[in-house]
Amino acid sequence: MSNRFNHPAALVESDQVGPGTRVWAFAHVMAGARIGSNCNICDHAFVESGASVGNNVTLKNHVCVWQGVTLEDDVFVGPHVSFTNDRRPRSPRMPQVRGRYERIANWLEPTVVEQGASIGANATIVPGIRLGRYCMIAAGSVVTSDVAPFALMVGTPARQFGDLCRCGQRLPGDYRSTVCRHCGESPQLRCHSSELEALTL
Amino acid sequence: MSNRFNHPAALVESDQVGPGTRVWAFAHVMAGARIGSNCNICDHAFVESGASVGNNVTLKNHVCVWQGVTLEDDVFVGPHVSFTNDRRPRSPRMPQVRGRYERIANWLEPTVVEQGASIGANATIVPGIRLGRYCMIAAGSVVTSDVAPFALMVGTPARQFGDLCRCGQRLPGDYRSTVCRHCGESPQLRCHSSELEALTL
Amino acid sequence: MSNRFNHPAALVESDQVGPGTRVWAFAHVMAGARIGSNCNICDHAFVESGASVGNNVTLKNHVCVWQGVTLEDDVFVGPHVSFTNDRRPRSPRMPQVRGRYERIANWLEPTVVEQGASIGANATIVPGIRLGRYCMIAAGSVVTSDVAPFALMVGTPARQFGDLCRCGQRLPGDYRSTVCRHCGESPQLRCHSSELEALTL
Repeated sequence: MSNRFNHPAALVESDQVGPGTRVWAFAHVMAGARIGSNCNICDHAFVESGASVGNNVTLKNHVCVWQGVTLEDDVFVGPHVSFTNDRRPRSPRMPQVRGRYERIANWLEPTVVEQGASIGANATIVPGIRLGRYCMIAAGSVVTSDVAPFALMVGTPARQFGDLCRCGQRLPGDYRSTVCRHCGESPQLRCHSSELEALTL
Repeated sequence: MSNRFNHPAALVESDQVGPGTRVWAFAHVMAGARIGSNCNICDHAFVESGASVGNNVTLKNHVCVWQGVTLEDDVFVGPHVSFTNDRRPRSPRMPQVRGRYERIANWLEPTVVEQGASIGANATIVPGIRLGRYCMIAAGSVVTSDVAPFALMVGTPARQFGDLCRCGQRLPGDYRSTVCRHCGESPQLRCHSSELEALTL
Repeated sequence: MSNRFNHPAALVESDQVGPGTRVWAFAHVMAGARIGSNCNICDHAFVESGASVGNNVTLKNHVCVWQGVTLEDDVFVGPHVSFTNDRRPRSPRMPQVRGRYERIANWLEPTVVEQGASIGANATIVPGIRLGRYCMIAAGSVVTSDVAPFALMVGTPARQFGDLCRCGQRLPGDYRSTVCRHCGESPQLRCHSSELEALTL
């Protein structure tokens, strides 16, 4: 009954994939991974047990989403984007660190990507941080700290270069007090009217 | 009759792949992708419908070539290189941007990589730009604007650090007025004699 | 008798893979690649003929290990890390450079990653260099020269930001004269007692 699509060369082992979601060739969704509805999981992507992906999300080719990473609804993740979940990785099979890797709380740091955020191609996201609603990470950037909502982030380490509208175009000023010249939306006004949950920010 | 080679674990759906081209394991060439002759398409590479790849091109592992990207003859693309074709990506399934993604002219920006250019491992190429003949992009660089012919580009964002010969070695000065100490070639002279089409640059 | 595990969707063509090593989906280990015991070779990884991987090594998703690259025991390689083996790559099928690629000594530069080193996600390793014992490369960095033992390296190009213990935590000073506040280990003392081979550094 579900209109999910799994490419014949995909491996989909999870029973928590929503309707309308498509998984393409050589992608692998492990058992215990959660993926919402109407997502597009492109070739060679990987979603690990314990990862959480919302609705309407795009995972471009080669993206890996690890345990501890949460992608909210409407998120875009460009090709070759690297998420992480361990700030001080060592090979868990090295005898001296086996104790550290016996308990997940010893090493896993979570990452949250809020609704509608976009992460450009080949960006790197350090663990333990939160990317705010509708932010945009420029291609090739390395993100090392929390990102404000609607922020455009560029560079290594990524720094903020102004604000963006939900439509993806630059805003003339702070998203809380300006109107988009491209689509006419006032991002903050939308938050107050139709997205009441955003008021808590 | 064509001596193409497709690895048994490759997916080659295009009928526009030239003779002598090899496609390796877990690579995917979609229907409508054009690939010339004598290319090497390595493991886990992806060539999308509408992408155009010339002759004698090397695509190392994990490279994705999207619709809107043109690679001319003799191009080298290192492993994990990220091309892009949308400067302001949002998840097309996000309700607020569906209109943008209904027409390709709304979002796609083309990329052209000219003859003989080399792109080092893990480099990122922003869309809407042109990489000149025989340029070389250092590994890990982020290219954000047009690149001159024979230029060596390094860093984030990539900046020019001199000129290179077609043989790949540094030139002592501008490619238009110097001779390579390694191979003896005068790049500009070659252009005037055997590559008349280059005169139009 | 060997308790190796090969995922049904993996391609393992080498007969030089040690006991206890696991190779996951869509990974490819070519004939002539050497991999030690108790390694974890994750999805979409690639190990080329002539590459050498020690014991207890972790290769996260999408890592490619080329001919000329040696990973010693206990090494961690994060997702999307790019190794390289040619400092001036051109497409070998370009007629003007075919001579260069006829002899491997003309172009291949080796890389050595010493025991226990960690390379963070999406880092890029330029060829011809050596990464010292137990160093750590921050995610997204571009490493362009030799790395000292126990060094923490960050950025593009990567620079040293202090020393780390084998356990992965920052040391208050030089690894040769300090004790780790987290695990109590004196890295240099360990070298003098149980790791005599390290004295040669």
